[in-house]
Amino acid sequence: MSLKTISRLFAYSPRYLQNARALNINTVNKEVVKSSYSIRGHLNTVSDQLRKRMAAGEKLPFDSIIPCNIGNPLAVGKDPLTFPRDVVSCIENTKLLNSADISEEAKDRAKQIIASTGGRFGGYTKSQGIEIVRQHIAEFMYKRDGYPCKPDDIYLSDGASSAISFLMTLLIQHNNVGIMTPFPTYPVYTSEAAVHGGKIVPFYLRESNNWSLDIEELVRAYNLAIKEGIDVRCMVIINPCNPTGHVLRPETMRTIVDFCEQNNILLIADEVYQDVVYNKERPFYSFKKIASQMKSNIQLVSLHSISKGFMGECGHRGGYFELYHFPEDVKAQIFKMATFGLCPNAVGQVIVDCMVHPPEAPENKAIWESERNSYITKLQQKSVKLAECFNSLPGIKCKPADGGWYLFPALSLPLKALEAAKSCRWQREVMPPDFFWCLKLLEETGVIVVPGSGFGQVPGTFHFRSTFLPEDEKFDQVIERITKFQNEFMTKYD
Amino acid sequence: MSLKTISRLFAYSPRYLQNARALNINTVNKEVVKSSYSIRGHLNTVSDQLRKRMAAGEKLPFDSIIPCNIGNPLAVGKDPLTFPRDVVSCIENTKLLNSADISEEAKDRAKQIIASTGGRFGGYTKSQGIEIVRQHIAEFMYKRDGYPCKPDDIYLSDGASSAISFLMTLLIQHNNVGIMTPFPTYPVYTSEAAVHGGKIVPFYLRESNNWSLDIEELVRAYNLAIKEGIDVRCMVIINPCNPTGHVLRPETMRTIVDFCEQNNILLIADEVYQDVVYNKERPFYSFKKIASQMKSNIQLVSLHSISKGFMGECGHRGGYFELYHFPEDVKAQIFKMATFGLCPNAVGQVIVDCMVHPPEAPENKAIWESERNSYITKLQQKSVKLAECFNSLPGIKCKPADGGWYLFPALSLPLKALEAAKSCRWQREVMPPDFFWCLKLLEETGVIVVPGSGFGQVPGTFHFRSTFLPEDEKFDQVIERITKFQNEFMTKYD
Repeated sequence: MSLKTISRLFAYSPRYLQNARALNINTVNKEVVKSSYSIRGHLNTVSDQLRKRMAAGEKLPFDSIIPCNIGNPLAVGKDPLTFPRDVVSCIENTKLLNSADISEEAKDRAKQIIASTGGRFGGYTKSQGIEIVRQHIAEFMYKRDGYPCKPDDIYLSDGASSAISFLMTLLIQHNNVGIMTPFPTYPVYTSEAAVHGGKIVPFYLRESNNWSLDIEELVRAYNLAIKEGIDVRCMVIINPCNPTGHVLRPETMRTIVDFCEQNNILLIADEVYQDVVYNKERPFYSFKKIASQMKSNIQLVSLHSISKGFMGECGHRGGYFELYHFPEDVKAQIFKMATFGLCPNAVGQVIVDCMVHPPEAPENKAIWESERNSYITKLQQKSVKLAECFNSLPGIKCKPADGGWYLFPALSLPLKALEAAKSCRWQREVMPPDFFWCLKLLEETGVIVVPGSGFGQVPGTFHFRSTFLPEDEKFDQVIERITKFQNEFMTKYD
Repeated sequence: MSLKTISRLFAYSPRYLQNARALNINTVNKEVVKSSYSIRGHLNTVSDQLRKRMAAGEKLPFDSIIPCNIGNPLAVGKDPLTFPRDVVSCIENTKLLNSADISEEAKDRAKQIIASTGGRFGGYTKSQGIEIVRQHIAEFMYKRDGYPCKPDDIYLSDGASSAISFLMTLLIQHNNVGIMTPFPTYPVYTSEAAVHGGKIVPFYLRESNNWSLDIEELVRAYNLAIKEGIDVRCMVIINPCNPTGHVLRPETMRTIVDFCEQNNILLIADEVYQDVVYNKERPFYSFKKIASQMKSNIQLVSLHSISKGFMGECGHRGGYFELYHFPEDVKAQIFKMATFGLCPNAVGQVIVDCMVHPPEAPENKAIWESERNSYITKLQQKSVKLAECFNSLPGIKCKPADGGWYLFPALSLPLKALEAAKSCRWQREVMPPDFFWCLKLLEETGVIVVPGSGFGQVPGTFHFRSTFLPEDEKFDQVIERITKFQNEFMTKYD
């Protein structure tokens, strides 16, 4: 059959006649177009352009870009822990099982994991994750909480963000599924819920009370959603909180569990910062432990990750989630869906193994603890120092962090600054004032932070999120540059 | 406020009153429930149970399980290539940059990649992938095709399956988006299209003509879909083909490009088996090359992966896709969506780098080529041997493989076997006859293959997919066990 004949056979195709592309901005999934992810958004692109201009020899008002926008400590001075990298390098390259450079315990761990993957590392693992790793996670959870944990209820993931995407796919079956989300929130929740067509039901954290969570606000948000006909199925809690640094009290957690139980809401507990808590009066408790103590029946998924805490192994994309009180037929669907992605990357799984099952031989244990503790101590000191810096500046008010990696200070912007922002455009819309402030900060100091508008905030308030991850002189530079900038900014727009 | 007061405030919640779980089988995303992925489906679960029974000491009719279902060569005897593992172990553990066990070239590559990730490896990379890796990919594509390739049009991914999921999210914005898919197909396409709510528009490959693709069949499938009101946006072509082993001729590829251009269809070219072609008369051509030669304007996404070909690094989850003829505003959406997942795992990206930019120092190059070529030669020999075995057996007819990792033989099942299958249940439905055959094969021989019904096949025909990946005595065992089984099966159901 000739092509001409075939052409005549073709049915009417409006897109062809309009000469539009198969995939153009009107045919891209609209949920994708509507969604956004502020942390890697426009300011990140601007910083790339600034870097290129500097590399091309242009003189800018600063000699380096310092990212305080992304929680990515290895990019700003952190060293990886020794033990996981020893294990991974042996697993990747078995001739190193004879190397004098690597501890015997790391070699043994490598052998144990290689054996659990069938004798040769690098093939697909089980879709749910390597068995010995899930077993070690279950032991870690039992030790942490004092309640049993089954390896079969654990799924390894490519970091927490892939777990979030996975859960949103599972939960959102129509455009009316409501996901209760704290505002401010880690924006991957809102991005992924949006892409999957879900409805965000925001509840506001109370800044005046150190960013605590009020049950009255949960009730308000829930009732409003129900009134609007939204089918509220799920609530996200991030504890220790990103971006506020707040750590929940057990009594608040119990109230949340009761709320979920009474309203039949599945709780997603994002606990990826569980290992970095600075406020001695606010130790970390897992929702699994609290719910178990209460003998609650709530459905719970809890997330953990190697990217955060004291590991910072972000690029290895490792994490896991535990299912709690899931019926067998739903678990079968989850298992099936996990097979579509074949398996999470195997190296990330190995580093998860090291996180939940650290070295025990005295010498390796000492190194591990020293690396971990000195990092957490430095983080704590920097969190205090940066909060003090912010609070010493005009127009910035900052709550201290109980834990986590971030501060979320409030900005009081002068009227002239609000006016100036109004005359700026961003993606064809008026630039939010905190975005304007962050853009100026970046352009004048090279320090990247994220506007509060990307996290959700009470309308009319302005914030930004900053990590305190940069180390040594980079950290001092952050303080110095922001101090100079803010004093000048407030004078300029006074 | 007391909990009792709060309870009274709660709005009416039908799920609570019905005492059903927030997430139960009726509230799980229905697209997930409808979807399936046969390769890791029920037979995989049965094989796990058999393994456990053997481990518990039970005597079965075989002494080992041999997986020919999953394309996972490191699980069945393949060794990883030396160079990528040397590079990865150095990158993970920089003290090995002084090790005598690792070649200087691998150390240099490691240093180059570490420099490209900002001086310390393990943090998040750029969402699109490490810059030097994308540059190496672009050079590889240019060398392969003779047409320019821009690093900015390349996205690294966690293997091809995550790229497929990504593309389906992008493409499917309502339940009426049609994805033209070859039957038989690699089932991740149908699974992911289903989960995202798309409509599969199948076109059948012609078994009688060595599984070739007929333009008349494309036209039939397309016209039927248009008649049904489906908005056909995209076509998937897998070349070399999974599961049939067919490699497309350039003239067929040109017809496909014309068809896509005239009907304004975006082409997803899955070219992950491009490096393993056995039929000298059917060399591999990329769709990028063919479309470029034709000066065609079609929109094309081409996929590649470290999991397949001669690498087999499945568990490292590395791959990439190239966008061709994408408008800038769509690319901006793709870039944004890539940021939601933060970045593909960094180690997978390093192995992609080694695949597209192999070692050049004479000694390393010799090792690389010997490892690669001996593996491909063995694959070819085994493909012939297994096809000959199948064709020597009653009730099985098998086309030889031009390339790839699989054979997709046809089963002629005796009436009595069809009757026997009818009396078996699987997921409350009648068991497809080829599923019945595969289950019997597994239970009696320990060899796992995948029923054709999971790939799509002409109704009334039956097939199975088998890899020829197992090495040495395992491969001999596959031939021996299937031979014995099929002779007995045909006698039993005669």
